[in-house]
Amino acid sequence: MIEEYTHRVEALQKQIATARLDAFLVTATDSIYYLTGLRYEPFERVFFLLVRPEGEIEVVTPRIEAENMGTIPVQHRIVEYTDYPAPAGETYLDALASVLKQTERVGVEPTMEAQLLSALGDWGPEVVPLIERLRLVKSRTEILQIEKAAHYSDLGLRMVMDAAKTGTSVQSGYDCIPALRKAIEDGEGRLDQYTSSIWLGAWASPFSAQPHRFPEPSDMYGPGPIVGLSFLRVNGYSAETERTFFVEKPAAEEAEVFETMRAACAIAYERLRPGVSAHDVDHAVMTFLRREGFGDNLLHRTGHGIGMGGHEGPWVAEGSDDILAENMVISVEPGIYWRGEGGYRHSDTVLITEDGYRKLTEFSDTLDAMTLA
Amino acid sequence: MIEEYTHRVEALQKQIATARLDAFLVTATDSIYYLTGLRYEPFERVFFLLVRPEGEIEVVTPRIEAENMGTIPVQHRIVEYTDYPAPAGETYLDALASVLKQTERVGVEPTMEAQLLSALGDWGPEVVPLIERLRLVKSRTEILQIEKAAHYSDLGLRMVMDAAKTGTSVQSGYDCIPALRKAIEDGEGRLDQYTSSIWLGAWASPFSAQPHRFPEPSDMYGPGPIVGLSFLRVNGYSAETERTFFVEKPAAEEAEVFETMRAACAIAYERLRPGVSAHDVDHAVMTFLRREGFGDNLLHRTGHGIGMGGHEGPWVAEGSDDILAENMVISVEPGIYWRGEGGYRHSDTVLITEDGYRKLTEFSDTLDAMTLA
Repeated sequence: MIEEYTHRVEALQKQIATARLDAFLVTATDSIYYLTGLRYEPFERVFFLLVRPEGEIEVVTPRIEAENMGTIPVQHRIVEYTDYPAPAGETYLDALASVLKQTERVGVEPTMEAQLLSALGDWGPEVVPLIERLRLVKSRTEILQIEKAAHYSDLGLRMVMDAAKTGTSVQSGYDCIPALRKAIEDGEGRLDQYTSSIWLGAWASPFSAQPHRFPEPSDMYGPGPIVGLSFLRVNGYSAETERTFFVEKPAAEEAEVFETMRAACAIAYERLRPGVSAHDVDHAVMTFLRREGFGDNLLHRTGHGIGMGGHEGPWVAEGSDDILAENMVISVEPGIYWRGEGGYRHSDTVLITEDGYRKLTEFSDTLDAMTLA
Repeated sequence: MIEEYTHRVEALQKQIATARLDAFLVTATDSIYYLTGLRYEPFERVFFLLVRPEGEIEVVTPRIEAENMGTIPVQHRIVEYTDYPAPAGETYLDALASVLKQTERVGVEPTMEAQLLSALGDWGPEVVPLIERLRLVKSRTEILQIEKAAHYSDLGLRMVMDAAKTGTSVQSGYDCIPALRKAIEDGEGRLDQYTSSIWLGAWASPFSAQPHRFPEPSDMYGPGPIVGLSFLRVNGYSAETERTFFVEKPAAEEAEVFETMRAACAIAYERLRPGVSAHDVDHAVMTFLRREGFGDNLLHRTGHGIGMGGHEGPWVAEGSDDILAENMVISVEPGIYWRGEGGYRHSDTVLITEDGYRKLTEFSDTLDAMTLA
């Protein structure tokens, strides 16, 4: 991995040069993990990786982290400050001033907090998504990690669906988490608690119409469409699998909407390849669904990017500026919803390949397979 | 709780009036939970509570969340936007513009991301920590919640220490998490997964000198000071208990440093009462430790505030502007460290009372009790 981190830092340095910046301040924990593999919880203590177009990284760190920072596997120099807050002359701003001149042109991350941006006011920093841009296209190492996450994501959803029955509650899905955790630990040798998370669950009808409501453990399985979710981060990388399923035989109208949702997915898949605009993919899907008469039943776009984050660029949405490229990873998940009744959505984790796409999640999607009764 | 939320919103409205703002935009998930009890994971989709000095709240929300937002228990009006991103005319900025005039004076939260702050450029928002200020002093309801978290925090540390033995690894501490989770579920009736977290663990020597290094499961218990950690958020509110302990009889010099660390704690406790400057508390502790010859062994301040967050104001640190007040909750945790050898730190969760303080964590702290051999 040292080679991978070195490569990522060099790619960032090229971006910094292209943006004609003297330096770039990396502050997001995910960005620091991406560039160095360092897992780190700063809380309120400010931490900077100061990266220039050339040369070693300068690590501005509170003293409490200085020894940990020594393990960063790329060329670096440590610059300590006392603590947050600290007496005058010993603060993070004093430490930064010792390595960054007021006259230098500096970029900062889009996720930097407003209070920190204000504190850096004298430097007049420029907000630029350099690392977000790098993360859009995945390396071979990253794709392998996402493939693993996708495998366990499928396994998690299988567990949730196997536990689902009329008259039991969605708590049965939450109860699968320890077994999935164990399966990952057994398969991978470890599930790093600091860069991993497991969300398993299900939205029973009518809550399947609220894709972002947190399901209550007391929600009961019964008639109508259920949306099951497996949303994982496994040792740093994410994947998701979602399926609409039934614990009781669906009515004819339900079966019809289910097939329309699958047809919407197919319209997206037909278009996935490098060079295609993400807007065009979503626009084709939404145009189809509107023509089918579901214009009032749309709550969200076709999909989003997946990587270290569960949601990241590219955004597969009308209005998006993103263009698909080889080795991007996205979700494909158009949905159809009726408030107070229920919703229909499958989601898969999908790699854009040289000439099309490959699904990294591999889960049945037919109505037969999704009818558990 | 509806009364509590109404009271919190009214307190914020008073702050907004005092700051002579026309409106304030609430964006942090923790702030939204604080004001409304709503648990919410926005990912990249922007969400605003627009609060004015008087009148109902305006909730600017992506369509995908609109139904969930209807459950907010305070007077409000929903303003939907399409999605992130969205076609021109349907974005979050368009929705915001429909309820906030460009000429109005608007405040935003210190945690707002730089990219959002930039997008709001035309409004020229002012960054003000209004909710951070409110959260400094805890209500009766909040103190009850923190007391519960403190009780389970003690229980978690007890489990970690009971599992610790020479020649076993710190994984034994991680393995206590399911049992602690079950104890909380049994005691409280629920452990809400969206507003709860459990960190149990231990830094074996020499890693006890790195208070913020993530312990590796393979780190082994053996000679030297061990720092055990229980750091919880239980149904919305946090607490922490930390203890320096030994699985083998400590050497005389180790016992001496242990007692100096306890004396440093005592110096802090002697000073805790309303009206005292948080700087003065830390300054007294640090002056004592420097005089005792440990000036090169200090990595961090005496403590931090605790509430919904595990780390929040007031900051008990040299250079802090905070003044202690009744019903603030802080940690008291001065530490002494030798790089490559080990460290000494106890931490308790402590309520500032009318005339002094009360420890909410109640865990033995003597060398006898902390020597497990």
